[in-house]
Amino acid sequence: MLIVGELINSTRRQIQPLLEARDGGAIVDLARRQIASGAHLVDINCATLMENEVECLAWAIQIIQEATDARISVDSPNPLALRRGLKAVRGKAMLDSINLEHERWTGFLPVVREFRPEVVALCMDDQGIPTTAEGKLALATRLVEGLTGAGIPPEDIYIDPLVFPVATDSGCVRVFLEALGLIKRRFPEVRTICGLSNVSFGLPHRSQINQVFLVLCLAHGMDAFILDPLDRRMMANLTTAQMLLGQDEFCQQYLGAVRAGKFDFLKPRRA
Amino acid sequence: MLIVGELINSTRRQIQPLLEARDGGAIVDLARRQIASGAHLVDINCATLMENEVECLAWAIQIIQEATDARISVDSPNPLALRRGLKAVRGKAMLDSINLEHERWTGFLPVVREFRPEVVALCMDDQGIPTTAEGKLALATRLVEGLTGAGIPPEDIYIDPLVFPVATDSGCVRVFLEALGLIKRRFPEVRTICGLSNVSFGLPHRSQINQVFLVLCLAHGMDAFILDPLDRRMMANLTTAQMLLGQDEFCQQYLGAVRAGKFDFLKPRRA
Repeated sequence: MLIVGELINSTRRQIQPLLEARDGGAIVDLARRQIASGAHLVDINCATLMENEVECLAWAIQIIQEATDARISVDSPNPLALRRGLKAVRGKAMLDSINLEHERWTGFLPVVREFRPEVVALCMDDQGIPTTAEGKLALATRLVEGLTGAGIPPEDIYIDPLVFPVATDSGCVRVFLEALGLIKRRFPEVRTICGLSNVSFGLPHRSQINQVFLVLCLAHGMDAFILDPLDRRMMANLTTAQMLLGQDEFCQQYLGAVRAGKFDFLKPRRA
Repeated sequence: MLIVGELINSTRRQIQPLLEARDGGAIVDLARRQIASGAHLVDINCATLMENEVECLAWAIQIIQEATDARISVDSPNPLALRRGLKAVRGKAMLDSINLEHERWTGFLPVVREFRPEVVALCMDDQGIPTTAEGKLALATRLVEGLTGAGIPPEDIYIDPLVFPVATDSGCVRVFLEALGLIKRRFPEVRTICGLSNVSFGLPHRSQINQVFLVLCLAHGMDAFILDPLDRRMMANLTTAQMLLGQDEFCQQYLGAVRAGKFDFLKPRRA
């Protein structure tokens, strides 16, 4: 299981001013807290800073690496920012994300070839996001073939089948989970990843929906998530589901999290 | 999805004195609250009352049926209590539970033939509970063949593959979920059911574990649960998972539960 902490992202209201002000203390603190809460990588996205993106992304990577051992996921739609970011990363980076839209694919592939990072690859092309499991598998196949052709080993590819908001299509999660199973059977060495929040778009109590979606994804073999590791309920569900799915021998991880006070609970009501 | 409310059970510390005192008001209230919270049936178990079980079980069934429209699950290890209980039930009852232990099977089968209830059938025989998915499927096969032979239609049979505590065997939930899939593929018309609490035996924060186990079971097609419907976190997870799995068109059930204030949440912490 690989957890990518999503919080250092300039689209978040509280984060953009910290990035604009180059508030290194706050950014490093947020990286540290995500790692301490269970993230394996810290995602960094400065895209809304527009013409300052390239410089800010490289700055954030540098200060986080100076102060922590955090692994870095470089998140940008801009090939130039990606190249500068990947250059700044010590050790193996993750690139978030490539897809099959012509401009994205042709713009990013040279960067992929040059830096050989782990790659998050989205099942999307110029026709959009497929609405069937077979359609998602077809795009996953093109992504895997293209990326392995560019020198990325299968175990460094993280496919995201892309889930729609359940409010717009009540069958979309079933399709997503079916696609996940198809991709894992076709490409056993390739990893799967997803973000959690899109599924709950437009509905109340989004965190509740995202938490349950996480467990459904784990039940169907998801390998990695991009999420908010400071959400203690989410991390409790992750730890619990991993234990139940046999990924936590002697329940050590679960018991350790309980002892460390990492779980928040309401007392269940009883009759 | 079928929910059986488990709370009227004499093994529960608070319930035994209410049953012993024949406190009809409290028992009817507990039945009503379970139904109002989403239970389709109310399970009634008076087994710890020993020589008074037969009479108490019939009494509880009668007062609940006089005051409510609740469907009844008659829960006893005693064929005599079962017969008296099933006789007292108006409409279709559920029998909880038969298994393949020689004494249980031969004692209960005449009652099953006589009353034709829905039947909860446990994957257990005189050798105990199988520890492999294939072993569970083999017992499920004998249960389905025996019960259909006794005149129970497949859709009235609820097979429980029986889960062990994850604290004693970290692979047992995977085996259970695999068995669930095997049983559903072999017998598409037969239903599946389980209780939630055994899986968390011996571990802290049992309700958290049971809640996540519920979602894993739903992800693998479980048809019914015996649970505490007054546990608002559990019911929130049930409602959410059903929506995500495409069993809640236009999210009506989910949105209705939110509007009715049926969900309890901690605010997620944010950076």
